[in-house]
Amino acid sequence: MIIVVRPDSTHEQIDHILDRIQELGYKPHISRGELRTIIGVIGDENKLQAEPLAAIPGVEQVLPILKAFKLASREFHAADSVVEIPVPGRAPVRVGGGYMAMIAGPCAVESAEILDDIAGKVKAAGANILRGGAFKPRTSPYSFQGLGEAGLKILQEAGRKHGLPVVTEVMDPRQVEMVYRHADMFQIGARNMQNFDLLREVGQARKPVLLKRGLSATVKDLLMSAEYILSEGNHQVVLCERGVRSFEESTRNMFDLSAIPNVKGQSHLPIIADPSHATGRPDLIPAMARAAVAAGADGVHIEVHSCPEKALSDGPQALLPDQYASLVGDLRRLAEVVGKYIF
Amino acid sequence: MIIVVRPDSTHEQIDHILDRIQELGYKPHISRGELRTIIGVIGDENKLQAEPLAAIPGVEQVLPILKAFKLASREFHAADSVVEIPVPGRAPVRVGGGYMAMIAGPCAVESAEILDDIAGKVKAAGANILRGGAFKPRTSPYSFQGLGEAGLKILQEAGRKHGLPVVTEVMDPRQVEMVYRHADMFQIGARNMQNFDLLREVGQARKPVLLKRGLSATVKDLLMSAEYILSEGNHQVVLCERGVRSFEESTRNMFDLSAIPNVKGQSHLPIIADPSHATGRPDLIPAMARAAVAAGADGVHIEVHSCPEKALSDGPQALLPDQYASLVGDLRRLAEVVGKYIF
Amino acid sequence: MIIVVRPDSTHEQIDHILDRIQELGYKPHISRGELRTIIGVIGDENKLQAEPLAAIPGVEQVLPILKAFKLASREFHAADSVVEIPVPGRAPVRVGGGYMAMIAGPCAVESAEILDDIAGKVKAAGANILRGGAFKPRTSPYSFQGLGEAGLKILQEAGRKHGLPVVTEVMDPRQVEMVYRHADMFQIGARNMQNFDLLREVGQARKPVLLKRGLSATVKDLLMSAEYILSEGNHQVVLCERGVRSFEESTRNMFDLSAIPNVKGQSHLPIIADPSHATGRPDLIPAMARAAVAAGADGVHIEVHSCPEKALSDGPQALLPDQYASLVGDLRRLAEVVGKYIF
Amino acid sequence: MIIVVRPDSTHEQIDHILDRIQELGYKPHISRGELRTIIGVIGDENKLQAEPLAAIPGVEQVLPILKAFKLASREFHAADSVVEIPVPGRAPVRVGGGYMAMIAGPCAVESAEILDDIAGKVKAAGANILRGGAFKPRTSPYSFQGLGEAGLKILQEAGRKHGLPVVTEVMDPRQVEMVYRHADMFQIGARNMQNFDLLREVGQARKPVLLKRGLSATVKDLLMSAEYILSEGNHQVVLCERGVRSFEESTRNMFDLSAIPNVKGQSHLPIIADPSHATGRPDLIPAMARAAVAAGADGVHIEVHSCPEKALSDGPQALLPDQYASLVGDLRRLAEVVGKYIF
Repeated sequence: MIIVVRPDSTHEQIDHILDRIQELGYKPHISRGELRTIIGVIGDENKLQAEPLAAIPGVEQVLPILKAFKLASREFHAADSVVEIPVPGRAPVRVGGGYMAMIAGPCAVESAEILDDIAGKVKAAGANILRGGAFKPRTSPYSFQGLGEAGLKILQEAGRKHGLPVVTEVMDPRQVEMVYRHADMFQIGARNMQNFDLLREVGQARKPVLLKRGLSATVKDLLMSAEYILSEGNHQVVLCERGVRSFEESTRNMFDLSAIPNVKGQSHLPIIADPSHATGRPDLIPAMARAAVAAGADGVHIEVHSCPEKALSDGPQALLPDQYASLVGDLRRLAEVVGKYIF
Repeated sequence: MIIVVRPDSTHEQIDHILDRIQELGYKPHISRGELRTIIGVIGDENKLQAEPLAAIPGVEQVLPILKAFKLASREFHAADSVVEIPVPGRAPVRVGGGYMAMIAGPCAVESAEILDDIAGKVKAAGANILRGGAFKPRTSPYSFQGLGEAGLKILQEAGRKHGLPVVTEVMDPRQVEMVYRHADMFQIGARNMQNFDLLREVGQARKPVLLKRGLSATVKDLLMSAEYILSEGNHQVVLCERGVRSFEESTRNMFDLSAIPNVKGQSHLPIIADPSHATGRPDLIPAMARAAVAAGADGVHIEVHSCPEKALSDGPQALLPDQYASLVGDLRRLAEVVGKYIF
Repeated sequence: MIIVVRPDSTHEQIDHILDRIQELGYKPHISRGELRTIIGVIGDENKLQAEPLAAIPGVEQVLPILKAFKLASREFHAADSVVEIPVPGRAPVRVGGGYMAMIAGPCAVESAEILDDIAGKVKAAGANILRGGAFKPRTSPYSFQGLGEAGLKILQEAGRKHGLPVVTEVMDPRQVEMVYRHADMFQIGARNMQNFDLLREVGQARKPVLLKRGLSATVKDLLMSAEYILSEGNHQVVLCERGVRSFEESTRNMFDLSAIPNVKGQSHLPIIADPSHATGRPDLIPAMARAAVAAGADGVHIEVHSCPEKALSDGPQALLPDQYASLVGDLRRLAEVVGKYIF
Repeated sequence: MIIVVRPDSTHEQIDHILDRIQELGYKPHISRGELRTIIGVIGDENKLQAEPLAAIPGVEQVLPILKAFKLASREFHAADSVVEIPVPGRAPVRVGGGYMAMIAGPCAVESAEILDDIAGKVKAAGANILRGGAFKPRTSPYSFQGLGEAGLKILQEAGRKHGLPVVTEVMDPRQVEMVYRHADMFQIGARNMQNFDLLREVGQARKPVLLKRGLSATVKDLLMSAEYILSEGNHQVVLCERGVRSFEESTRNMFDLSAIPNVKGQSHLPIIADPSHATGRPDLIPAMARAAVAAGADGVHIEVHSCPEKALSDGPQALLPDQYASLVGDLRRLAEVVGKYIF
C-alpha cells in the first residue's frame, strides 16, 4: 500500500500518519520527493485494504499494490481449476482446463412436457448441462415468478431422464437446502452477485456454483464475490460473464467479452459466457457464442425454447432447438482451433 | 402496447401475430402504413408487458405505452405520500410532503460509547433519524462485517436515549424479524434493491422501509422495486438516490440528482438523497447535500463519525460532527427557499 | 510516478527497468517488499506520464502521483479566476469568484424576429449572456444544420440591441475567425471537447471560451482539454457540466452535478451547469438549475424558446420565457444562501 | 412515428396536435384507447424525426418506427458492400463480403527506420494494410503530437516499399487535402466520430474512410455518422468497433464486440474490430482478436511495435511483431471456420 501525502500537509500531520500506521500494526517507509512525500506501508495487504487510511488528515491518495482477492488468484493456485458436476450413474461433467460447459435450456421451468421436449433436443444437439429456473428474479412483481419447488422437481426429473446434470438459480438463503436436494449446481444470478449472505450459504454447501457477474460489477468485484464462496470452503466455482449495463440501447446489456481472458489471467477459476442475457437478441446470440469460444471461454450458457413466443419468461431471447444444434456444430470447430474440446 | 411489424413479414406471419394477441385475451388493432404495418394491442398493460410478444415471428419492435408500475405511480395516488417513523413517547418523524428526513450516523455500529457520542452530536446538530449498520455488505470477505444483533441493540439503545428513531440495513430475509424488533425503519441497501425475496419480506412487515437505488438501476427499476414492497401491503416506502456506477473515476459513484425531480414527477413516494455514498468524498458532500435539498429531496442521508480515521467501515467518506452541524445550518436556509422545513 | 514490479520478474528485468528510467533522464528509487518490489521515479511528472513505462517487460502497474494538468490547477493559481466577457459600451459581464453567468437563449438562431423576441424576454428575466447556435452539430445529416454566418450576424445584432454579450458554438477550426468577428465568447460543444486542433485554435484567439464537458469525458479529461486552451495563452476559459452518457433511459444524459465542487476543488477556472442538455426535459430543468446553484456553480446555461413546438432544434427541451423568469427568481434567492449574486 | 397523448390532455390540446401535424405536411391517424390516445403520423420519417413534436403541449411520448439512417441501411442496399483500397501497381485490397482487412502498424509514425522495420515484419506476418499516425489526438497537450506531414511522407514511402496501402488519422478538415495526397485511406478517430465538418470533408474526398466508433457512441450514432459521409457521395466507408467508456477499470475501454453482428444485421457496410484500443492490454489483444474474427468482423486493426517500451505513443498496448505473426496464424484458421479468408 502506498500513501501519497498532500503537498500542504504539516509535519504534525505526517507524524500522525506514521503513528497511525504503526498503531495498526504495519511498518511505514517514508520517502520525501520534491513535490510529494509518499509513504509505503508494509504488512498484510488484505487487512490493510480494509483500514480507513484515506481518512487520516493529510492523506491525498491511497494506492493499493496487491490484489484484494487471494484464494481466487493465480498466485494462490497456478493451474486452471477443473470443476466437476456429478451426474448420477455416469462420469461427471468437467468444466475448465480444456473441458467445455455446454449449458442449455429454457429461461424458466414451465411444465414437465415442455422441459422434457427441450431437454431431449438440447442433449441431442450437444448440451451437457441442463438449465431452467424455478425461482425467477423479475423486475416486475406482476411477471411470472417461477414454479418454486414443483419446478425444481420437474427439472431434476428431466435431467435424470436425459442424463444431464441440472443447474438452477437460488435467490434466497432459505432456498439453499431445497435447491441442494434437487439440483446438481447452484446458480447465483447477476442481481445476487453481491448478496453476501447467499454467497456464504452456498459457500457452505458442497455443490458446484455458477456465479454470474453483476450488472455493474467490475471484474475485480466478481472475483471478490467468488472469494466469499471460496473462503467458506467451497472451491467448486464457475464464473459467468453475462453482460453489464451500458448506454447502448439496442442490446439488453453490453457483453464484456474481454472479461474472459482478463479473468483467466488473474484467476484459476473456469469462466463461461452467456450470450443470451448479454445481448437479449436471438439474431446476435450465435455470433457472440462463437466469439466467446474463440476468446477462450470454458463454456457457453444459452437459452433454448421450443416455442419462444409462448415462453413465460424471456422468450424473445431464446434460440430454437435447431438453431442451437447448428450453433454447437460451429462451436466444436472453433473450440478445436483454440485447443479445447466439446464432447 | 404497439407492435411494429417487420417490412419483410408475410401475410401468414401478420395473421399469426393477430391470432396470438387474441389467444392471449387482448384486442389487436391493425394499421397499415406505406413502410410499416403497426398493430395496437388493447388490454391490461401490466399483464401485457410480461407477454413474449417480441418473440412472435415477424415482429420488429414492441413499444410499451404505459408505465410498468402502478401502486407507486402518481396516477394511482396523486398527492405526496407522507411516511411516518414512530418514536417511542413522541410524535413520529414525518418524511415527505414538505417534511425532511435528516438521517445521520456512522456507517457501522462499532461500540455503545462511540455511537452514543455520535448520536448526541448529530441530534444536537439537527438530525431527526439515527442510522448505523449492524449487518454490513462488504465487497471483501476480509472486511469488517458488522456486529449483528449486538449492534442492533446498541443502535436501539442510542436511539431511545437521544429520542431518535433508528434505521438500519437488513440484508437477508432471515434477519427481517430480528431487525424488526430493534429498528424503527428498515434499510434495503443498493446491492439488494433487486433482492426480490427480501423486498417481499419487508413488504409483509409493518414498518417503514428506506429503499436505496441500485448501482445500475434505472429510475424505472427503482420504482418497480418499490412496487414489490407496496404490492405486499406495506405503503411506508421512502426512496433514496445514492449514486450509480459510471466511468468517472474521481468519485465513488455518479450522483444522479435528477432522479429526485424525475421520481417526484411520476410517483407519490418521498425520495431522499445520500451524498455520502454518491460521492465517497467528504470534500464534496456538503455541496451535494445543498444541491439535493435545492433539487427537492425529502431529506438527506449523511454519514457522520467523530473519528473517521478509526471507523471500521467507510471512514474516508464520513463528515465530522462539526461539519455536519454547519451543513445543517445551510440546509435549513435552502429548504426554506424551496418551501420545505427542517425541524 | 511509482512502478510496481511483477512478482515473477527477473533480476535482469529489474535492472533493465532501472536503466531505462535513467536513460530517459529520471532518477529511480527502488524499494523491495516481501511481496512486491516498487520503484519510485523522480522527475517532471508531466513529461513522465507520456513515457511508455508500462511497456517495459516486468512492469505490473504504473501509478501516477501528481495531476496531469498544470495551468488549470489550483496549485498553479490558488484564487478563483474571474473571466470577463466584454459588452460594447458597458461594463463586462464577469463569471467566477461570486459572479454568476446567466446564459439563456434558443438552441439555434432561426430568424431575426424570433431571436429579438427571445433576447428581450430573457434579458428582462435576468439573463446576462445571450446564446444561440449558427453552426449546429446534429446526429443526423438530415436535421437542420444552422444558418451559418447569417445566423452569427442575427445573433450579434440581437446581443447589441439588448446589451447582452453573445456566445455561440464553433465546430471547425476554419470557422474560428468568422465566429471571432461576430461573437463575444466561443462555445466548444460536448462533441468537440477533444477536438484538439479546434482547442488550439481558440487557444490562440483572444476571446473567452465556454468549454463543455464531453459525453464520456472524466473530470480530468475536461481539465486536460482546458489545459490545451490555456497552454496556447488564452486564460479566459469557463467550463460547463452538461451531463454524460449513462444507462439511464429517462433523461437525455446523466447530470454529474458533483463535477461542480469536484472541479472547483482542483481548479481555479469557473464552472457553470447546463441543465437543459443534461436532462433534456423541461419538467426537470428548474429543479436541476436550482441544484446547480446550490452546488456552487458559477452560472447556469438554459435554453429558452418562445415557441418550443416550432423550434428548429431541440425544441422539446426549451423553457418558455415565463418559466425562465420564474426560475431566475428562485436562483437569486438560492445564490444568496451560498454567497453569490445574480445581478 | 407514433405520438402518445398525455392522459390529462384536453380536447383543445389534441386538436392542436392534429393541426400541427397537418401544418407540417404529414397525415395524422388518431386512435383512442381506454387509457391513452395515440396518434400515428404518416410521412417521410427522416424529416419527421427532426420535428419538435415532443414539445407540443399534451404530448407524452414520441416513438419513432423507422431507422434514422438510410444510405447505410440494408434496406437501401441488401448485399454486403466491398470497399476497395488501391495499392499502386497491384490489385486493390478488398474489405467486406468475405475479404478481411488485416491492418497493423505502430500507433504513431516515429522515424523512417522504425516504420520500415515494422512494416516489413507485419507484411511478412500477413498484414495487408499499414497504419501509423502522423497527427495524434492526445489527451494531454504535453504528450507527443505526431510528426505531421513529415510523418505522412514516411508512412507513404514505407507503404510503397512494402506493397501495402496505408491508413492514417485525419483530425482537422484543413488536413484532408494533405492526407489525401499521402494516404490510401482516411481514418476518423473515435474522438472525431461526431466531428461533422470533418465527416463532410472526407465525404467529399474520393478515398476510402475507416470510421471508428466514438467512446460513448451507440451503434445507431455510428451508423448516423457513416450516413454523413455517404450522403456526401463517398460510399467507401469501413466501420470500426474499438471499445467504449465504461465503469470497468481494468481495461482501457469496454470492447462491445456484439456491435459487429449488430451492425451487420442493419447495414451493408464492412465493420472491423480494434482490440488494441478496446482493451489497452497486450495480454488481452490476441484473445479478443480471435473473438472478433469469430464474431464475424471484416478485419482486425492491431498496433504492432518492435520496441513498445520506446514507442512515443501507446507503447504499452502494442504487440511485438512475433506475437502478431503468431496471432495471424490463429486468425486464418478461425476465419476459415466462419467462411472468410485472410490472404
